Amino acid sequence: MNKISALQKARAAYAPKLPAALANGAAVTINEGGATTAVADVEKVQALFKTTFGSPVLTFAPGKGEKSAARNVGVILSGGQAPGGHNVIAGLYDGLKSLNADNRLYGFLKGPDGLVKGEMVELDDAIIDAHRNTGGFDMIGSGRTKLETEEQFEAARANCEKAAISALVIIGGDDSNTNACVLAEYFKANNIPIQVIGCPKTIDGDLKNEWIEASFGFDTACRVYSELIGNIGRDANSAKKYWHFIKLMGRSASHIALECALQVQPNITIISEEVAAKKQTLGEIVDYMASVVAARAANKMNFGIALIPEGLVEFIPEIKVLIAELNDLLAANADAVEKMDKNEKVAFAAGKLSAESAKVFASLPAGIQMQLCNDRDPHGNVQVSLIETEKMLAEMVGTKLKAMKAEGNYSGKFSTQTHFFGYEGRCAAPSNYDADYCYSLGFNAAALIGAGCTGYMSSVRNTIKPASEWIAGGIPITMMLNMERRHGADKPVIRKALVELDGAPYKHFVANREAWAIETSYVYPGPIQYFGPSEVCDLVTKTLTLEKGGNI
Amino acid sequence: MNKISALQKARAAYAPKLPAALANGAAVTINEGGATTAVADVEKVQALFKTTFGSPVLTFAPGKGEKSAARNVGVILSGGQAPGGHNVIAGLYDGLKSLNADNRLYGFLKGPDGLVKGEMVELDDAIIDAHRNTGGFDMIGSGRTKLETEEQFEAARANCEKAAISALVIIGGDDSNTNACVLAEYFKANNIPIQVIGCPKTIDGDLKNEWIEASFGFDTACRVYSELIGNIGRDANSAKKYWHFIKLMGRSASHIALECALQVQPNITIISEEVAAKKQTLGEIVDYMASVVAARAANKMNFGIALIPEGLVEFIPEIKVLIAELNDLLAANADAVEKMDKNEKVAFAAGKLSAESAKVFASLPAGIQMQLCNDRDPHGNVQVSLIETEKMLAEMVGTKLKAMKAEGNYSGKFSTQTHFFGYEGRCAAPSNYDADYCYSLGFNAAALIGAGCTGYMSSVRNTIKPASEWIAGGIPITMMLNMERRHGADKPVIRKALVELDGAPYKHFVANREAWAIETSYVYPGPIQYFGPSEVCDLVTKTLTLEKGGNI
Repeated sequence: MNKISALQKARAAYAPKLPAALANGAAVTINEGGATTAVADVEKVQALFKTTFGSPVLTFAPGKGEKSAARNVGVILSGGQAPGGHNVIAGLYDGLKSLNADNRLYGFLKGPDGLVKGEMVELDDAIIDAHRNTGGFDMIGSGRTKLETEEQFEAARANCEKAAISALVIIGGDDSNTNACVLAEYFKANNIPIQVIGCPKTIDGDLKNEWIEASFGFDTACRVYSELIGNIGRDANSAKKYWHFIKLMGRSASHIALECALQVQPNITIISEEVAAKKQTLGEIVDYMASVVAARAANKMNFGIALIPEGLVEFIPEIKVLIAELNDLLAANADAVEKMDKNEKVAFAAGKLSAESAKVFASLPAGIQMQLCNDRDPHGNVQVSLIETEKMLAEMVGTKLKAMKAEGNYSGKFSTQTHFFGYEGRCAAPSNYDADYCYSLGFNAAALIGAGCTGYMSSVRNTIKPASEWIAGGIPITMMLNMERRHGADKPVIRKALVELDGAPYKHFVANREAWAIETSYVYPGPIQYFGPSEVCDLVTKTLTLEKGGNI
Repeated sequence: MNKISALQKARAAYAPKLPAALANGAAVTINEGGATTAVADVEKVQALFKTTFGSPVLTFAPGKGEKSAARNVGVILSGGQAPGGHNVIAGLYDGLKSLNADNRLYGFLKGPDGLVKGEMVELDDAIIDAHRNTGGFDMIGSGRTKLETEEQFEAARANCEKAAISALVIIGGDDSNTNACVLAEYFKANNIPIQVIGCPKTIDGDLKNEWIEASFGFDTACRVYSELIGNIGRDANSAKKYWHFIKLMGRSASHIALECALQVQPNITIISEEVAAKKQTLGEIVDYMASVVAARAANKMNFGIALIPEGLVEFIPEIKVLIAELNDLLAANADAVEKMDKNEKVAFAAGKLSAESAKVFASLPAGIQMQLCNDRDPHGNVQVSLIETEKMLAEMVGTKLKAMKAEGNYSGKFSTQTHFFGYEGRCAAPSNYDADYCYSLGFNAAALIGAGCTGYMSSVRNTIKPASEWIAGGIPITMMLNMERRHGADKPVIRKALVELDGAPYKHFVANREAWAIETSYVYPGPIQYFGPSEVCDLVTKTLTLEKGGNI
């Protein structure tokens, strides 16, 4: 047994809160809604999900604690780590035990791979207790294998049958839940008696909709990042000499950057969805940032905080085009490019791009040009995730300010520090919100299993209220699906939730960003607290609070 | 009034604990020790500090709460931010008010500059209350101006006289406290009735000795870094695919890296003092790191955590020589170098270095060569603090592993992520330890002022015990001084406390590092807690615990 910290010891004893519906255990009373449909492309979705399509939304009320026959269940962690994964499993375990003390839970190892390869471990009290309220996915590991092929489904079936497993819980993001739904349909259509239940996870916060109001881990990760951004803001405001450019995890959506902005009130926050909607150029983004720096400098504040979402470059139309051209260009001339040194590759690319892209390319810092031409993945593509956007923007803003200084439009000092926060928050121990929410999602998944459901996502709602008022139930995954073009084919997928430009969180940000830019209005959230007064420990994200009509 | 977070609101009410000696206020009973001396170079120190040398060590016991005549006091924050600075000022304020409710406290703005320029603000209840238990130095700002010249001392005198200030408290690191001592001597020798008291601050932890067992901020900063390193460790152990190379603040001493290693038990920690003592080459450091990576890979653990102190490169003898040669070389050929492009400078340097240094230079990654030749400060010197040591080592270890693979000595995967933690912790809200310690240091400084002392450092000891058992008193700064060569002249300075290779903290690390390297023994300290059980909130650093003979 590994040594554990004082905090882990104390936190292990925390009993996560549950919705009232689950207070008597996972044997619940079920309220069925009417038949459901899909968010779009209804006919196509229905054709793909013949047996699971149209299932009703379920809402749970407390049951009488009836016991059911003993059974075996498997659980899988899929995709990137998010705070609270262990609590989903602990909730599932406790929920299953409440149905029948002889129920057994198996954890498939290293993600979906474990299901396909039949690698699993039985989870017992000792393992579960050692992981209650902890961060990380190290209890059973995770993986990024996608469950998509019939071969995989058959292997999954065989491995489940071997261990007499009659239900699977897949904890993952939008893709993993889509695949859970496909697997559920496969099993049901083929009369294989294995239920499949999904649980919504992504720290990026992009798996949410009317029924799934939050994906777990988002709250904790944003609190860790906000703690750090607040600390850095306090440092900036004390030293008064640096602009900190901070890149934040969030590849396809800017929810994390937006939530951190609402928590800390930094001077600049770029929202990728706004950039895309307004078709902003890189030059326009740089101009905006430089204008804020200059405005603050005019007030003798040569310091500030700028937040940049990780995925930004992919939302800038001209950069998307440039990257696509570079990918084609370097692939088409692979043999010649192979023989060039790093500088020659840059010169070669610069000479062959379209006029428009050549201009964009020329505007980039030398280090970024170098990276775009040299750091390529095994398929020969630019590795967008490796682009140090925070350094690129810091350098470009500096260049812009020099030009403004020459024109007499700026007379401040501009020194920068850059940061990237991602791994710092993905495995933090869950906040009370995530500890409670995750435990409830897992316990509720046991209720869905007990109710005989398949193709459902565990849903816990009304989470801006105390847990006793949370609404537990199940949502047929098919009702969240639409068809999207992926790798040249139409596929059923859960629509990714991007930052909505007519949503309350974004609107609150826009209403305040000018004041936050010019003034120094930093709020210092501090570290996540687990033991203090409720108003400090039982927080809900600003995003969810605003989405539900609350004030922040 | 700015918006404050829920945590700030709740934390503002925290009443820091005080040593028993200060329980009845700052009018204490004084126990005098015998005459003191200096740690070395006694005669030279004595000659420089004619009037303040030899003062006794003072230990305080509770007084009877006598009031003294009203007076004005000034306070200065000097140097880099460290958690708890505001609490020193709050403690000083409360201590002064306990002596006489009409005592006034002025904060000099932006560090020693404010004293020289006469820029100050009176600190009242509203300002103090708004900053209790908060991080940052933004209450009055800080600065790095050194108080060294008679001109500055005279300006300080004039500005103090203008505001009828008869005592100054300087909160700073080793240099600032040395200068406080010089200023105290200047005032006393010239019969200027202004007392000067120092308070020991540095998050680096390098201002400590027999009498000053900790400099404030070190505890909090190490806890923030350890929280993040622990989170990253949990991520590494969940994803099992990255080696994280983490650089930690700490330019001249590796106390932070060592404390974080003791808290988290990472696989690799480089201690600069060991590198210097063993005259390790960069190649040897890389070989050691690669050997750990390979040993873990042999156990199928292609992931890990490596901690690297910020100042490492300056402790590697061959790199020190290389940098000195580069500085000379580029300065001697400034005109020619000016006209070269970045690559030409690298080629030029490579051709002109001594054979030994040329070999070292050639072993460095191209990006680092580029930086060493191109990023130079206004004096033409290499900017050591900008060297991305964590990336350099990650790249060099990767190169070494490729060679080992070719030789058949390694067959793992090696992917890296790099991080640098510094600004994340400097302005965190102080832990209970730092909140209590800082408040006590400030309150105790008021007692020293009340006792008529000058040239003393505020000393609070026995802090591994509950605060009621802490020992408060004053230490003549002269007794910590020795003479050191600085910029070509002998100067009195407080000896910097480096990691002692025969000290208990380092020995504990060495006794465990092989196990920590091969196994995955990460401990997850989690975020600083302010409200929980005492064993979670009232922690003492592992370093101090071990130094005082305790177990961790």
